[in-house]
Amino acid sequence: MILDKINSPTDLKNLSVDEMKTLSNEMRKIIIKKVNTTGGHMAPNLGIIETTIALHYVFNSPIDKFVFDVSHQCYPHKILTGRKDGFLNESDYQKYTGYTAPEESAHDMFKIGHTSTSISLACGLAKARDLKCENYNVIALIGDGSLSGGEALEGLNFASKLNSNFIIIVNDNQMSIAQNYGGLYDNLAHLRETKGEAKNNFFKTLGYDYCYIENGNNIETLIEEFKKIKNINHPLIVHLVTEKGHGLTQAVDNKEKFHWIMPGELDEKPAFSMPESYTSITVDYFLNKAKNDSSFAVVNAATPGVFGLTKDVREKLGKQYIDVAIAEEHAIGMISGMAKNGAKPVFCVMSSFIQRTYDQLSQDLCLNSNPATILIYWGGITDSDATHLTTFDISMMSNIPNLIYLAPTTKEEYLAMLDWSVEQTQYPVAIRVPNIELISTGIEDKTDYSILNKYQITKKGNTVALLGLGNFYFKAVEVAKLLEKEEINATIINPKFITGIDCELMEELKKDHKVIVTLEDGELNGGFGEKIARYFGPSEMKVLNYGSHKEFSDRIPLDELYTKYRLYNELILEDIKKAL
Amino acid sequence: MILDKINSPTDLKNLSVDEMKTLSNEMRKIIIKKVNTTGGHMAPNLGIIETTIALHYVFNSPIDKFVFDVSHQCYPHKILTGRKDGFLNESDYQKYTGYTAPEESAHDMFKIGHTSTSISLACGLAKARDLKCENYNVIALIGDGSLSGGEALEGLNFASKLNSNFIIIVNDNQMSIAQNYGGLYDNLAHLRETKGEAKNNFFKTLGYDYCYIENGNNIETLIEEFKKIKNINHPLIVHLVTEKGHGLTQAVDNKEKFHWIMPGELDEKPAFSMPESYTSITVDYFLNKAKNDSSFAVVNAATPGVFGLTKDVREKLGKQYIDVAIAEEHAIGMISGMAKNGAKPVFCVMSSFIQRTYDQLSQDLCLNSNPATILIYWGGITDSDATHLTTFDISMMSNIPNLIYLAPTTKEEYLAMLDWSVEQTQYPVAIRVPNIELISTGIEDKTDYSILNKYQITKKGNTVALLGLGNFYFKAVEVAKLLEKEEINATIINPKFITGIDCELMEELKKDHKVIVTLEDGELNGGFGEKIARYFGPSEMKVLNYGSHKEFSDRIPLDELYTKYRLYNELILEDIKKAL
Repeated sequence: MILDKINSPTDLKNLSVDEMKTLSNEMRKIIIKKVNTTGGHMAPNLGIIETTIALHYVFNSPIDKFVFDVSHQCYPHKILTGRKDGFLNESDYQKYTGYTAPEESAHDMFKIGHTSTSISLACGLAKARDLKCENYNVIALIGDGSLSGGEALEGLNFASKLNSNFIIIVNDNQMSIAQNYGGLYDNLAHLRETKGEAKNNFFKTLGYDYCYIENGNNIETLIEEFKKIKNINHPLIVHLVTEKGHGLTQAVDNKEKFHWIMPGELDEKPAFSMPESYTSITVDYFLNKAKNDSSFAVVNAATPGVFGLTKDVREKLGKQYIDVAIAEEHAIGMISGMAKNGAKPVFCVMSSFIQRTYDQLSQDLCLNSNPATILIYWGGITDSDATHLTTFDISMMSNIPNLIYLAPTTKEEYLAMLDWSVEQTQYPVAIRVPNIELISTGIEDKTDYSILNKYQITKKGNTVALLGLGNFYFKAVEVAKLLEKEEINATIINPKFITGIDCELMEELKKDHKVIVTLEDGELNGGFGEKIARYFGPSEMKVLNYGSHKEFSDRIPLDELYTKYRLYNELILEDIKKAL
Repeated sequence: MILDKINSPTDLKNLSVDEMKTLSNEMRKIIIKKVNTTGGHMAPNLGIIETTIALHYVFNSPIDKFVFDVSHQCYPHKILTGRKDGFLNESDYQKYTGYTAPEESAHDMFKIGHTSTSISLACGLAKARDLKCENYNVIALIGDGSLSGGEALEGLNFASKLNSNFIIIVNDNQMSIAQNYGGLYDNLAHLRETKGEAKNNFFKTLGYDYCYIENGNNIETLIEEFKKIKNINHPLIVHLVTEKGHGLTQAVDNKEKFHWIMPGELDEKPAFSMPESYTSITVDYFLNKAKNDSSFAVVNAATPGVFGLTKDVREKLGKQYIDVAIAEEHAIGMISGMAKNGAKPVFCVMSSFIQRTYDQLSQDLCLNSNPATILIYWGGITDSDATHLTTFDISMMSNIPNLIYLAPTTKEEYLAMLDWSVEQTQYPVAIRVPNIELISTGIEDKTDYSILNKYQITKKGNTVALLGLGNFYFKAVEVAKLLEKEEINATIINPKFITGIDCELMEELKKDHKVIVTLEDGELNGGFGEKIARYFGPSEMKVLNYGSHKEFSDRIPLDELYTKYRLYNELILEDIKKAL
């Protein structure tokens, strides 16, 4: 294999174009095999192999600096920069993160996993270079899908005025994760149709020099073009047309599905008999509601698939389905406006991405108390990459005034909360969709959620009260069982409301309880438990808070995290006994 | 006066153009008098009087719906929609907020005070209208300065694809608060030069129909043009050129200064012998540092004036001064890149606006632990508008991992922290610039701030420990004096570090203290004190937390807030005695 000889970008420099083509095939094969084994970003990486080879051939990393947006597409870069073992050897498949990571290589400038950041980050590299009077190329590579994000657009506006070398490669593979949305994408299409010659050119209106490369999967062309722009003395957009999923027919034919795949997805024809889940019951609710109420609408920001909003579902929802593209800030502003004007919008978003829109939550939505609904998916402690942690949503959102943030524990409770939220007209409401296996009681939840901050006692005991929030309610139940063995009849409470304290109940607890335990599946700092600790601060009550620490844990196995955070039931029991 | 007859927009409909011109003069006079008396946004409002009259003449508010971006420019709208008393009668000058406010009038759609939100909010109104099959005009009015913000750009990308009536009026007064910055503004200039005829048109590349109005201060023209576009069936950009400060020579000649003025600023020639302040010593530090270190740079997002970054200072800083325009997300991404590449950036931002960039703080900066410095100005509890509260920065920022957030209490401490932050290379650091009168000890602070989370005991006592954070350190000193009278020798602590707990000291306190009091000038929820409460939760220690409640207080007098939050020293004393 050619790849055997490639241990750093320098080793590329002596290859012929034909050898590089062979290399690209070798890389493609190992990426397909690896991703199909471990799961991961398939199509984005397949599309960018040739570009990455050509970049490393022409430019001189890490003196020249690359910034990969989202770094969904950094696998080829990793292979060429000393990390091929992570793709060649099955035993090393988990050795490297799926994103750029400076601790792995000097060729990685930043740890990146959220979109639309590359231009601003690279702009900073260029500014520092210029302040220090240094000379080299700074290159941001950004997909067309990521362009719609606010930070990318802010960066585009700013960077064109740099009076120095700055290269933005727009990797136009004609896709976000799903279809792109917005006027900008019509302009990109127009530019492609005219081979970059269209008079009306979005990038040029922002003051950029502009270069169009039609065949972004042809190494020869790429090398030729990159040589021309190397060491350019001003900001330049390289509009590079690539094929997402290039070289893998299934991925080319189904770009959305193959953006990110599960292990083995390539081989199997997944049977679509998914078991009932919080995702599936939500979709069912959406379809039913939409049919019966034309003012109801489902909104998401470019990741419909993860919410079960498949093509089929989208078609059924029709104009009641809105994809705003990667534009979470706009999404929150828009649902606030929709709710103000009598519509019933539900915005679906992942815990890790709701933080892309704090100010809009605060100012556009909550300050105006417009009754929109936000569903937060997959909040909780996981072994994920540091870039995609889902532990911060409670601490980020729940300190914003006026927001009602709810934590259901069962199917019935979740659906009752969801329907209450959609139909009420007073509050912005967020619901933390349970990130656990679906549990159904079979009993309709008839709680009136307009009575705010009313916690539910599910077992009345004494001495110890366990407040199990959302995902962690069942942990409270389990700990109570352990306590029973110690002859302690603990009270179990389902708080339901993350954003407020049930003061009446808390006062009640003071009478015959000595220890309050809060359990939340998220960060302790700024979270739910701390409010309970503050509440009881002036009293004799002892409070134990459980949750994750303030840290960017990075692919740490869950058992390690649970041990560290003392989240195992036995550890909690130990602490309670100590406190009593 | 014509104005006597105008109690709602309907009353405009019978006026002749000449009468409307007279009306505009009357409105101009009362706005100038009022703003010069109370302080407020002068130039933006003067520039938009004619537009507002023409809008209300042609359109039919509140059936047709206007959304004013930032609502810096809503005074003429308020005058025409039943609130002229707030501008005519000195006794009513404080009756209305300086921003749009739905609780004041059905003509105000949203409470708005942060920029770049109008397109998304209006887009939501339009979406709801379309879902409900209603018919009317939805109009967003946005200044050129606000266009550079991420949410506005996201909204622009989205809104052009609405298949229905949607009008965005770009009020191009050729200014942000200071000068605009970025490639987009060259395009606006080019469009102005060509009277809208330039082939390369930013808005058209995004798919908008486009209409150019050169004389945005001419009522006749405006009415004519607005009539043409009323009930248009697709998204349209109206590029309206107005003069910021129109009709007031001083404001036209000095648009930056007259964007927002202090009471009486129009009459006086303010002598520039400002007393030493945290702002002035920061500027002195900047100038000195920049002279001696070419890698040092000062960054801000379109509000240089408020940080004392006057034209003179900006010129002295030269290329070491960077205004990113209204683009806080880009600012954080960029300073992360600058710090990564060896520069020493300091980003100046107001407490109320740092929340415009949560995800970038988390992902671009803190996850990467790049050593950039952020100065947070004016954090604290105030009687401000709900749109500009400065109580949320601690709870928003301090739960993000890796960030070091510092709270200095004196000049010497502040400068020591600032210089440490600029020179160190390990952490992203934010400093809460004291929002109190400058206090100088005269003694150089030689603390080594690289020893993290080391609190300072300034008075060793027993029984009660007072942790006075930043602005509220001196409140701790005062409360200690009250306690002395009660023969309680309290310990006083200056925590300095908002983002961590000095566990060693806390353990020490357990020995001979019964009550810990935390005092912070900001929101309790998610703030500093709650972490202390959580720390002591499992122990016998009682903890009292003081700060503001989770609410959007709206121009509530400070004494009312202090009473409600029990922040008066006597109230704190009362609570402590109760807890002992």
